[in-house]
Amino acid sequence: MTTDPAVHPAWLPEASFAPLGSRRVAVDLRDDVSPVGATVRAEVAAAVAAHGGAVVDADHMSPDVVFALVPGDTDPEAFTVTSSGGAVTIAASDARGLLYGLFHLVRRGEAAFDATDGTRRHAPHSPLRMLDHWDNIVVHPVMGQVERGYSGGSIFYADGSVREDLARVGQYARLLAASGINRVAINNVNVGPLETRLIGDLLPDVVRIADVFRPYGITTHVSVSWASPVRLGGLTTSDPASPDVQEWWAGAADRVWAAIPDFGGFVIKADSEGQPGPFAYGRTHADGANMLAAAVAPHGGLVHWRAFVYNHEQDWRDRRTDRAKAAFEHFAPYDGTFADNVIVQIKHGPLDFQVREAMSPAIAALPGTRVAPEFQVTTEYLGHQRHAVYLGRMWSELLGFPYWGAEDGRTLADVAAGRHPSGDGTRVGGFAAVSNVGDDVFWTGHPFSQANLYAWGRLTWDPTLDPIGILDEWIGLTFPGAPAAVRETVHAVLDESWETYELYTAPLGVCFMVQPGSHYGPSPDGYEYSPWGTYHFADRDGIGVDRTRATGTGFTGQYPAPWSDVYESLETCPDELLLFFHHVPYSHVLHSGTTVIQHVYDTHFEGLERVLESVRLWTEAEDAFPADVAERVSDRFAEQVRSTTDWRDVINTYFLRKSGIQDAHGRTIY
Amino acid sequence: MTTDPAVHPAWLPEASFAPLGSRRVAVDLRDDVSPVGATVRAEVAAAVAAHGGAVVDADHMSPDVVFALVPGDTDPEAFTVTSSGGAVTIAASDARGLLYGLFHLVRRGEAAFDATDGTRRHAPHSPLRMLDHWDNIVVHPVMGQVERGYSGGSIFYADGSVREDLARVGQYARLLAASGINRVAINNVNVGPLETRLIGDLLPDVVRIADVFRPYGITTHVSVSWASPVRLGGLTTSDPASPDVQEWWAGAADRVWAAIPDFGGFVIKADSEGQPGPFAYGRTHADGANMLAAAVAPHGGLVHWRAFVYNHEQDWRDRRTDRAKAAFEHFAPYDGTFADNVIVQIKHGPLDFQVREAMSPAIAALPGTRVAPEFQVTTEYLGHQRHAVYLGRMWSELLGFPYWGAEDGRTLADVAAGRHPSGDGTRVGGFAAVSNVGDDVFWTGHPFSQANLYAWGRLTWDPTLDPIGILDEWIGLTFPGAPAAVRETVHAVLDESWETYELYTAPLGVCFMVQPGSHYGPSPDGYEYSPWGTYHFADRDGIGVDRTRATGTGFTGQYPAPWSDVYESLETCPDELLLFFHHVPYSHVLHSGTTVIQHVYDTHFEGLERVLESVRLWTEAEDAFPADVAERVSDRFAEQVRSTTDWRDVINTYFLRKSGIQDAHGRTIY
Repeated sequence: MTTDPAVHPAWLPEASFAPLGSRRVAVDLRDDVSPVGATVRAEVAAAVAAHGGAVVDADHMSPDVVFALVPGDTDPEAFTVTSSGGAVTIAASDARGLLYGLFHLVRRGEAAFDATDGTRRHAPHSPLRMLDHWDNIVVHPVMGQVERGYSGGSIFYADGSVREDLARVGQYARLLAASGINRVAINNVNVGPLETRLIGDLLPDVVRIADVFRPYGITTHVSVSWASPVRLGGLTTSDPASPDVQEWWAGAADRVWAAIPDFGGFVIKADSEGQPGPFAYGRTHADGANMLAAAVAPHGGLVHWRAFVYNHEQDWRDRRTDRAKAAFEHFAPYDGTFADNVIVQIKHGPLDFQVREAMSPAIAALPGTRVAPEFQVTTEYLGHQRHAVYLGRMWSELLGFPYWGAEDGRTLADVAAGRHPSGDGTRVGGFAAVSNVGDDVFWTGHPFSQANLYAWGRLTWDPTLDPIGILDEWIGLTFPGAPAAVRETVHAVLDESWETYELYTAPLGVCFMVQPGSHYGPSPDGYEYSPWGTYHFADRDGIGVDRTRATGTGFTGQYPAPWSDVYESLETCPDELLLFFHHVPYSHVLHSGTTVIQHVYDTHFEGLERVLESVRLWTEAEDAFPADVAERVSDRFAEQVRSTTDWRDVINTYFLRKSGIQDAHGRTIY
Repeated sequence: MTTDPAVHPAWLPEASFAPLGSRRVAVDLRDDVSPVGATVRAEVAAAVAAHGGAVVDADHMSPDVVFALVPGDTDPEAFTVTSSGGAVTIAASDARGLLYGLFHLVRRGEAAFDATDGTRRHAPHSPLRMLDHWDNIVVHPVMGQVERGYSGGSIFYADGSVREDLARVGQYARLLAASGINRVAINNVNVGPLETRLIGDLLPDVVRIADVFRPYGITTHVSVSWASPVRLGGLTTSDPASPDVQEWWAGAADRVWAAIPDFGGFVIKADSEGQPGPFAYGRTHADGANMLAAAVAPHGGLVHWRAFVYNHEQDWRDRRTDRAKAAFEHFAPYDGTFADNVIVQIKHGPLDFQVREAMSPAIAALPGTRVAPEFQVTTEYLGHQRHAVYLGRMWSELLGFPYWGAEDGRTLADVAAGRHPSGDGTRVGGFAAVSNVGDDVFWTGHPFSQANLYAWGRLTWDPTLDPIGILDEWIGLTFPGAPAAVRETVHAVLDESWETYELYTAPLGVCFMVQPGSHYGPSPDGYEYSPWGTYHFADRDGIGVDRTRATGTGFTGQYPAPWSDVYESLETCPDELLLFFHHVPYSHVLHSGTTVIQHVYDTHFEGLERVLESVRLWTEAEDAFPADVAERVSDRFAEQVRSTTDWRDVINTYFLRKSGIQDAHGRTIY
């Protein structure tokens, strides 16, 4: 149950089990023989062995803690906590609920036993709380072992095959269960020839991985290639209307579920950035998704069908085409036609995981469809886990976005849970995100990036949690018994770090001023003349993308009221999204009272100053951290300062050269 | 002697041997037993066997052609041609001269026998006429098998080792001998760990390659790592002052020359773009070069020491540092101190093989040093052999550059041959260039790029040759018996193609508006904020690099008169180098009478028009070409049109957005 001592324990150090492990604990699982039930028993046994407690009989020895399987709750992941007189009872209708209850106790620590709360039920916001791994079995010549991974190699794959030793995957499963995640897709959505074989001759390897995840209540999914019937089946077509293709997929599903009866299903990126898909056969994405869905439905399987479909060979000269509109255009017309076991997985923004972009209107446009908004825990556009950037606040803001206005109140998280204003309440989706984990000793490159993984899990369980509270929880678990300086420093560095990152990178929602390819570091014109559909149209007079209905691409029309009008109007468009929706002169005055150009200068000077202040605080406190953490964090800060300085100066210089307008405060711009 | 029929014969198709092979040929090699002598015999025997001639006895049968070894000429590569009454005698003091004479006859074809020229001596301009291969044994994750190679894989290496079958290398050796090249460096100057072992345990593979080159008079060189004593020798240092290091290199040289007695020597890129070098030990490049030179001198070996030394981690904010000045600064102070067997290899321009840049002043600053200017036959910055670009005219202009003014008359080619005005005439260098050959069926990707390889060889033999005449020669050899349309079309497409490429890419000598990394396609700001030292400083008012002594980096001061003043003054600086030397407003009026901005627009519209006219001519004539050539060329033209259109529009749009000045002719700019 303990992790390899060489690997950082993240939020499950041995010490965090002391409050539970030092008590007398009863585990009443009746006749449960599930793998998760065995995990509950084993976790309790290990904890009491390590911390001086004991496993006792529930009925006869007045235990301090009781884990009890009690029929009734329809959600197998839910649990109730009853606190009374220093004793705590965790009850659930399924061992999975008990396991979540166990980790709930670990999170709360001694406080769990001080409280007398009566009985409180805890249940997840949605049954689908997934992490996607963009891990390749074969190292990709450009993208590497883990696409957009910044934490070393893959925990699943090495040397061109699935690892023999999956101990690290087991540790990962435990960490995920302790944060709330219950599904993992184990391979990159860009599926290469070898990875295609995961549902073919490599299936025994998937069986091994599923066996490691199962004891922690985690269901295994696989990303599949649309071309599988051709690549694996020897067919000449992948046309979803072809009976041969339908039969091939049905047979493939039969084989997969025969090997793994609780297998989750398929994730698929089709007709996207060069991946094959149904468009080649004149079929829609509904046709494609429903064909796959029919194949897996007899087994209770799911199809996660990604909506990241757009023209990645756009002509930059063509200003009428707007990539932001693509997901809505490709999917909204088919709302209501997707099968019950299709989850349409839609990125939270209409572009691609920018530090600040508009919400995806497609997410609000599918009341008759099960939707899973997709996020990135890995920081492709947010500093590659070299910059200290905590994403809890960003996600919290996105999850709480009121798609139909504050009055209606329903949020992105509500849509994911099936509570669409136009829906019937049955179309329950979930959440998906790209993991940030690799075989790095700290799991996530930057030790503080563990907090993002933790926060993602916690927010999928309860999107209304306070993200700073989650961070506080992570600090307490990860640095048990640490002096107050640790807690204060991590908060000082991370609490507003998302906003800080926004300050020193692309301004006012303009997006994509990154180095092409790597997406790390500034390159203001890097994508300006590219085929990727991500432009800002800066000239000597102004900058921004006119996405209005009146004079632009009409993207604002994809939103429901009130946002369709809020974004359309310069008067009401929020400053932080100004350049996402409007092309304005550099002298345009923001709601904040400053001009666009002065805002750019001010924020970029402030951004670096905030990073330098973080470094100052860190340097004062670093001796209070474990030495290995301190060393790694210090290394990362050195790079962050270098990179942030580059961002400040490149962006400021770019805007000064374009606009010719000097900084009002006379600071140095090159 | 014939090539694999699957491989294009380039300028040595069987038919080109008909004039020689249909005659009675005597080969009088006395007691010569050299490998090159055997080649002369074999070439003659194969030619007459194929074309109905005969090998005859020189004294008794009045041969049409005589190849005779005659002592006397001190240049073993020189030959004389005596034409009289339809008979031709080739005489030389060494079999190498005879081989060059044989290919001279092949080039001239029937015309060689029509002439009665008396006796004429042909000798190479310089004894060092080298091609460098940037081929890697191990495929580099970014740079691939052949760095900056656009012609498939390496002819030397495959699957991580030297090819077993070197037949293709033999064919290559023959092509090179027929163009004038006599030395080849077989591996990339960026030397990886495995490639370092070419002078260690992989030496037997080098022996095999040298065995294939030797029969064609080609000497083999190897690129070495400065860190070899550490990597191979297990030493802890590569300090050139260390006796252990000196001893290690001497031993290495002993081993190499013991295996290959006619081995050429070492090429080295030290302290350059991350390669190790003597700077790490506080030593100069003279210290480093002379230490290596001492090791190879007992064997008659050479050290080609590259002068491509500059700070590739420059801060773009620092406008005082000028990469263009680096080679002069690092090497000129040590002139006169380099050993006799050191060749300082200097790129022809101070930056990096741009379509138009100033001449390297370093080349003129080393009268007491053997200098080899370095060129690129591979088209890193000139269209990747996807664009039809003939470089003969460019090289001819560069080789003929009068470094000390028209009155003095001495050129870059003269410097290479030791005829520096301040030199003593003994410091004879040579020429080096990076090959454009790979395992592509046409050798060079674009079939017309063969002409570049051919022209490079011919110009190293005689830099005063008319480059259009060389092209004409290549056409005649490569397309024997073709209709007139072939000759006319190739001339129409290629004669001014260098100037055409300049028209549609970076204007007025501004350099580096390419995509970072690949160096293909436009990215006007691609290197503007990078650490590579290649900036243009465009803002809304103007563009260009001030390299004057008066107000800029002072680079103009590195030139001898008259150029130090010609480039310094806006009045006299040639238009085509204006932005290399000066930062000017977009409204600046060129000597040509147009403004900078209008020049940009005019040339970019004209550039595409010229390409489209080439395509029109090509389309009319393509049926006259061999089908395989026609197919490949048509494919390349499709890409060239796409890419040229992109260049036109990106550059024009970039300048319009920056300047706000409309095209005077109202053409479409985006």
